[in-house]
Amino acid sequence: MGKWIHLLSWLLIWPTLFANDPDLRADLVQRRQSVMEKMGNRGMLILFSADVRPYSGDVSYEFRQENNLFYLTGNRHPETTLVLMPQNSSRREILFLPDRDPRRELWDGKIASPEEVADTSGIQTVWSSSEFDSFLDSVLYGRPYRSQSSQFDDFFADLQKGVADVYLLMEPKPGLTGEVSEEFRFANRLRERFTGIQIKDASQIFQQLRVIKSPYEIKQLQEAIDITIEAQLEVMKILHPGLWEYEVEALIEYVFKKRNSFDWAFPSIVASGPNATTLHYQKSQRQIQDGELLLMDIGAEYNYYAADITRTIPVNGTFTPEQAAIYQLVLNAQMESIALVKPGVPILTVHQKATEVLKEGLFRLGLITDPSTNQYRVFFLHGVGHFIGLAVHDVRSGDHLRTNMVLTIEPGIYVREDSEERLIAQGVSEKELDKIRPALRKFMNIGVRIEDDILVTEDGYQVLSQTAPREIREIERLMRENGKR
Amino acid sequence: MGKWIHLLSWLLIWPTLFANDPDLRADLVQRRQSVMEKMGNRGMLILFSADVRPYSGDVSYEFRQENNLFYLTGNRHPETTLVLMPQNSSRREILFLPDRDPRRELWDGKIASPEEVADTSGIQTVWSSSEFDSFLDSVLYGRPYRSQSSQFDDFFADLQKGVADVYLLMEPKPGLTGEVSEEFRFANRLRERFTGIQIKDASQIFQQLRVIKSPYEIKQLQEAIDITIEAQLEVMKILHPGLWEYEVEALIEYVFKKRNSFDWAFPSIVASGPNATTLHYQKSQRQIQDGELLLMDIGAEYNYYAADITRTIPVNGTFTPEQAAIYQLVLNAQMESIALVKPGVPILTVHQKATEVLKEGLFRLGLITDPSTNQYRVFFLHGVGHFIGLAVHDVRSGDHLRTNMVLTIEPGIYVREDSEERLIAQGVSEKELDKIRPALRKFMNIGVRIEDDILVTEDGYQVLSQTAPREIREIERLMRENGKR
Repeated sequence: MGKWIHLLSWLLIWPTLFANDPDLRADLVQRRQSVMEKMGNRGMLILFSADVRPYSGDVSYEFRQENNLFYLTGNRHPETTLVLMPQNSSRREILFLPDRDPRRELWDGKIASPEEVADTSGIQTVWSSSEFDSFLDSVLYGRPYRSQSSQFDDFFADLQKGVADVYLLMEPKPGLTGEVSEEFRFANRLRERFTGIQIKDASQIFQQLRVIKSPYEIKQLQEAIDITIEAQLEVMKILHPGLWEYEVEALIEYVFKKRNSFDWAFPSIVASGPNATTLHYQKSQRQIQDGELLLMDIGAEYNYYAADITRTIPVNGTFTPEQAAIYQLVLNAQMESIALVKPGVPILTVHQKATEVLKEGLFRLGLITDPSTNQYRVFFLHGVGHFIGLAVHDVRSGDHLRTNMVLTIEPGIYVREDSEERLIAQGVSEKELDKIRPALRKFMNIGVRIEDDILVTEDGYQVLSQTAPREIREIERLMRENGKR
Repeated sequence: MGKWIHLLSWLLIWPTLFANDPDLRADLVQRRQSVMEKMGNRGMLILFSADVRPYSGDVSYEFRQENNLFYLTGNRHPETTLVLMPQNSSRREILFLPDRDPRRELWDGKIASPEEVADTSGIQTVWSSSEFDSFLDSVLYGRPYRSQSSQFDDFFADLQKGVADVYLLMEPKPGLTGEVSEEFRFANRLRERFTGIQIKDASQIFQQLRVIKSPYEIKQLQEAIDITIEAQLEVMKILHPGLWEYEVEALIEYVFKKRNSFDWAFPSIVASGPNATTLHYQKSQRQIQDGELLLMDIGAEYNYYAADITRTIPVNGTFTPEQAAIYQLVLNAQMESIALVKPGVPILTVHQKATEVLKEGLFRLGLITDPSTNQYRVFFLHGVGHFIGLAVHDVRSGDHLRTNMVLTIEPGIYVREDSEERLIAQGVSEKELDKIRPALRKFMNIGVRIEDDILVTEDGYQVLSQTAPREIREIERLMRENGKR
């Protein structure tokens, strides 16, 4: 029993799952090449894998690779380190992998061999993780390592001249009082021991590259999006009053997993009635009532790529006039924002268009008295979108839209119970409040968000989540035809 | 958009989910009382909450509280700290909670107030987490804190005498080279600054208490077990050749979530054919073939309590004679082990009984030539079970079974492709191997594990997972009657 329990500490080390995909391999080679170019073909990049995250007792969460390491290697294994040294004549790319261990494979299954990893990623030099420290030591002291020293001499020469750059992921920033990350500690150890090293943050390089998606990446995103749409459709078919939010969430994540996605890209938001006005409501512990709206902000993660789609639908299949009024306003704002998407457009312009439409509509509905003020912010509480990719809130770079960016556009209106309080905090006068109160009562606790995933194309845009119904009549028809209500 | 992204760093802070349950409250009060008694009613216990674990980008995994803090408080919130000071006249129990923050609640929903937390947990003193450092400083320097200093004077007097115990969770052990945990760092800071403090590991106290389950805890375990059984049954109904392992896993976790469990207590093991011989196969990436077995080692986590049940079933609804032979042997070993369970029995005896039955059977089947040797270990690779509770591999304490312990009993036989190799490594002679080879071929790639959850009762045992079919004819009948084959 002791042995049983002891060995179980390996329980969550996921075996490496390499899909031997030539498109991926070509992408990986190209990505590493681009990173090295952005490094000015000098210096050294070191990327560490994510840690295995403890869950409870000796059980860990399912392992998730650090995105940038994944972006350059496709590797899904902990205890892995990538080193790029662009100025080398050979061995410009070295991947350090944990050794295969028969005892571990008995429990967890076969671990990819160095040959397999080389084949899948295009990285020729695959060494044992246990060698990393001595490798680095040798390079930084200009000593031979595996008789390869001459290949590292350029870097060492730079170091002696006091100009050797070491790129690490130095985000997030700890500030003066926050805890420093492992990368910071590693950087500090390097600087303490070797003069001449300049630590550079590699984050910007990755932001610049990752914000533009390759055809391979767009294919992965489309699959994640299609899975997410299927989940939205399944809920539209079975939704009825009396279900619990967690039952709906169970169905959504069933569809995700059944199509081989890694569950979610972010915890599902399944929010009924007033819960829809809490932006990231995740408890899913309420019974869904007749006459309410259900907001589903969900995204499958397929092959590490994140979808993010929100639909807000009537629990009984028919929008009330009040719900329809808010819904149509949000939809108009979304459609007008989307229509602006094309290369060269400032991202801010897209946000401003949504804001403008929402302001006008809120004024028309009586929820604000003055569109020239910030009153609208009581009801529209967030920005209009974000990029998606390996992370659901993916890297951004630059202020303008460019071809092959993929972003969400997701305006929303939330008539929260604290709306009056928040209007007062804005300095809205009692007289104006009197004008607003009837509309507040009329629309109270309605929360609507509509979110789609948009690819910037050469001449405009493509709504990757197009097939998820979003017009009122579409949703009502689908729910009527399939419904169990 | 910036704001959107920025605020999303809160995305995974789960709102506190307190079930206001009088049974739980009574349990919590009693548990804290027992801990203080085991501390000898002196000293100070400090328990920190678990960290929020990063997943990808600004998204974190769903928060899971540290088990011992949960055991004493029922609290499910990060940034929470419990202090017990048994010798105080009042304020023997202090819980430090994060402040409520309207901006955060806008995104994540209502956070429990100090009053609600006091009401649910029975802890009267609930202070802000931001006060913890100054509170501790005051106590350790004998200074007044919130004019409460006199209540902490006993502890300070002990400290001045050089005998003040501070209990922390000092597991896992870092060894001479491993990384020290936050508890260790905290302990080291305390000892550096205050002479007279003796750090004691609180783990044993919790092991002793948590290994015996209360009626409330057994109820939670039974619910987790019932949910897990439902999932096993659902798979028996729909299983057929051609399904992918991940589709089966999706169904299992759908049942878990539909019944409001927190997904799994450990990543589901859904292993078909040869994968069943990898003990913790978790990839679930294989298409299930006709004529194979499917091993499902799964457990729902309900209200933080973990079930753990394994069933091994024939994909097409009927065991082959070879599968049936191995299956019946494992089942016999399990039943004979279970039959021994009662208070006072050494845990080792239960394991030895399974070993003995398996040895005899393996010999009878021709898979080993000598039951007096360790040959059986090539096929029976692990211990016979473990305790369950807040963790799936729960704490253990002592060497004998006691009333209200809950443990798994889970013998298994795995005829792996490397079996011959491993017999050779044991020094088994070529002559003996010749005798074994026909049986190896006959049973190759069959893996069977049968696992149930057993409550030790005053006069014996109760199989909490009794209603999950495990006899060959039961499983075959159920699959025939409901099957889609």
